[in-house]
Amino acid sequence: FESKLPNLGTSIFSQMTTLANQYEAINLSQGFPEFDAPELLKKQLNHYVLEGMNQYSPSSGVPRLQQQIAELAQRKYGAEINADQQVTVTSGATEALFVAIQAIVRRGDEVIIFDPAYDSYQPAIELAGGKSVNIALHAPDYVIDWQAVASAVNKNTRAIIINTPHNPSGKTLKQQDINALKAIVSAHDLYVISDEVYEHITFDGQPHLSVLRDNALFAKSFVISSFGKTFHSTGWKMGYCIAPASLAVEFRKIHQYVTFSSFTPAQHALADMLEQQGEHVDELSEFYQQKRDVLSNALKGSRFTILPSEGTYFLLLDYSDVSELNDVEFCQWLVEQASVAAIPLSVFYQQPSHDKVIRLCFAKSDETLLQAAEILCQL
Amino acid sequence: FESKLPNLGTSIFSQMTTLANQYEAINLSQGFPEFDAPELLKKQLNHYVLEGMNQYSPSSGVPRLQQQIAELAQRKYGAEINADQQVTVTSGATEALFVAIQAIVRRGDEVIIFDPAYDSYQPAIELAGGKSVNIALHAPDYVIDWQAVASAVNKNTRAIIINTPHNPSGKTLKQQDINALKAIVSAHDLYVISDEVYEHITFDGQPHLSVLRDNALFAKSFVISSFGKTFHSTGWKMGYCIAPASLAVEFRKIHQYVTFSSFTPAQHALADMLEQQGEHVDELSEFYQQKRDVLSNALKGSRFTILPSEGTYFLLLDYSDVSELNDVEFCQWLVEQASVAAIPLSVFYQQPSHDKVIRLCFAKSDETLLQAAEILCQL
Ligand SMILES: CSCCC(=O)C(=O)O
Ligand SMILES: CSCCC(=O)C(=O)O
Repeated sequence: FESKLPNLGTSIFSQMTTLANQYEAINLSQGFPEFDAPELLKKQLNHYVLEGMNQYSPSSGVPRLQQQIAELAQRKYGAEINADQQVTVTSGATEALFVAIQAIVRRGDEVIIFDPAYDSYQPAIELAGGKSVNIALHAPDYVIDWQAVASAVNKNTRAIIINTPHNPSGKTLKQQDINALKAIVSAHDLYVISDEVYEHITFDGQPHLSVLRDNALFAKSFVISSFGKTFHSTGWKMGYCIAPASLAVEFRKIHQYVTFSSFTPAQHALADMLEQQGEHVDELSEFYQQKRDVLSNALKGSRFTILPSEGTYFLLLDYSDVSELNDVEFCQWLVEQASVAAIPLSVFYQQPSHDKVIRLCFAKSDETLLQAAEILCQL
Repeated sequence: FESKLPNLGTSIFSQMTTLANQYEAINLSQGFPEFDAPELLKKQLNHYVLEGMNQYSPSSGVPRLQQQIAELAQRKYGAEINADQQVTVTSGATEALFVAIQAIVRRGDEVIIFDPAYDSYQPAIELAGGKSVNIALHAPDYVIDWQAVASAVNKNTRAIIINTPHNPSGKTLKQQDINALKAIVSAHDLYVISDEVYEHITFDGQPHLSVLRDNALFAKSFVISSFGKTFHSTGWKMGYCIAPASLAVEFRKIHQYVTFSSFTPAQHALADMLEQQGEHVDELSEFYQQKRDVLSNALKGSRFTILPSEGTYFLLLDYSDVSELNDVEFCQWLVEQASVAAIPLSVFYQQPSHDKVIRLCFAKSDETLLQAAEILCQL
């Protein structure tokens, strides 16, 4: 049997979580919170399940939830969104990314992505018959050279995938990045897939520069977000895509044949949550900034170099002073010998990266973070 | 914006349910039960949500659920399944179908499907770069001419999609169908995608002839099922695929980038349900046979010709004696003027079908079925 994705194995997140469980290690690898979903969200889910809201929702989502999503986009970014025509609820942001890519990438198209890149982009592009053009960013600052991006654009270029706040680096795009992106997109008639799943997690008072803030840029964009990240419920697999109506039509054609619709009771519960406890969203940055600081401070005495994290729930560490191993070997060693599971950065690069950098997830209790830091400080 | 699926609009199921709601019609169109999920299933879901099982499950599914699925296949079909390597839990059978098609169909491949065909097959094949070869079956008996299938096979043929019990016709494959399929598959080294989402709904004492019963055939197959159909919970979007390990590996590569994983608490609840109330599965045929009979008997006085339903929760009616309209027009008229929503069969054909046949869903309360029948008897 000849594989459609011959170079791919099991995702690094699954691999590391399996190893973490096997070695009973502290799992700071796969990105998921150690805290539970909010009580109201759980209570409302149970309510709708008991009430019998257990059949198909409309393929694009429960209207009340679409409406709440549009209102959040209005409140946070000033975006005027038509909930009915522009918001599509998906079975996680992963599905939304896959569908957006299927909707626009045709055979032979090129899509510019930035390495380290979330691991689903490239296989999704390949399955659509396209080709990724990977522009590598590197430690310590992961800055995008927009000149290089402009040079990479050719007549086959169809789209650019951006991700801000960026997983795994924790970098956020700044206004000059958005301006540069916009100039390229409009000069070459490209589309943008904007992965904003960590939109509500930015630090040190920085606003999240959503593509939704910019009408001209949004007109060519699919903006993707995740309730799993926002409401500590990664196992619910709820996300969404906001797009201009003409793009949403194409997105929905694909979505209806990929999953058709998403878990109905969760959609109603999320609508209640956004309606009744909207402040949760606004408190998330502060919540995670405290976590980042707990971990960073506890690592100050270590031999790791801490890279800046401006958003997401990830922190990068340069381990050059700790080990000679490459990052994959080092993470293997770390989980086996030191009982801490982390993610090696090189797996997110198409061209080999020799940066000695690993990613830690700090969406964990202070206790867990301090335990991990104590181990890491001894290395 | 040039569409990847230019000929597709909104699925007929979404369209008809929208119309049914708009005209306050009795909705016998989209296939979903009017009865609720079992109490135990709902209770256990709520239990796991409250317990905090709200983060990612493994991409292939919660091991306990994989195990229960394998045991059911063993108990019902005598299949020896390795739960860990062969069972993958998906976000509904629609996702499983999409992923299986992506896993095996390459650019230029042909896939044989039988019209009337479930509406997701063809776009999924096209998105994978393949081409469907549609073999039309017709009222009243929808019999497959295996000679015609053998003739349709050529060097580009990659797979055959079967669906038994068959939506929309309600036909089940017989042993001679399975034998004929097997002969073709082994002679030409083809793959089979076996859509068995109504596996537990067969009537008049007929067993379901799952591909899982036949080792040689299963060795080339993806077998797909749906908990939504089995447990009256279509809105939970839970399904699965059982495949030989070598095919499951490829299926999982794609699945991990399409949705990654499915709603965690529901997986645990389904495992409990299968473990503690396995008899639900065995009682389903009788439950739906009674529904079929209520509807058929109530329609005996009508001018519709009732076609035989051997499984699924669908019944076909030939309306030749009722109206001159084509089936799309007739369904439109029916929902607007008679307040009954049904599905026209012609939308499931690639080549125009002039059969005057509509599909009714009888997964409804006796009261609803009798109300609809009363209206239909007056036409
Ligand atoms: C879908 S598993 C990956 C979770 C995640 O987003 C990450 O760890 O980066
Ligand atoms: C996913 S909506 C379609 C439901 C169904 O299977 C049908 O009505 O045939």
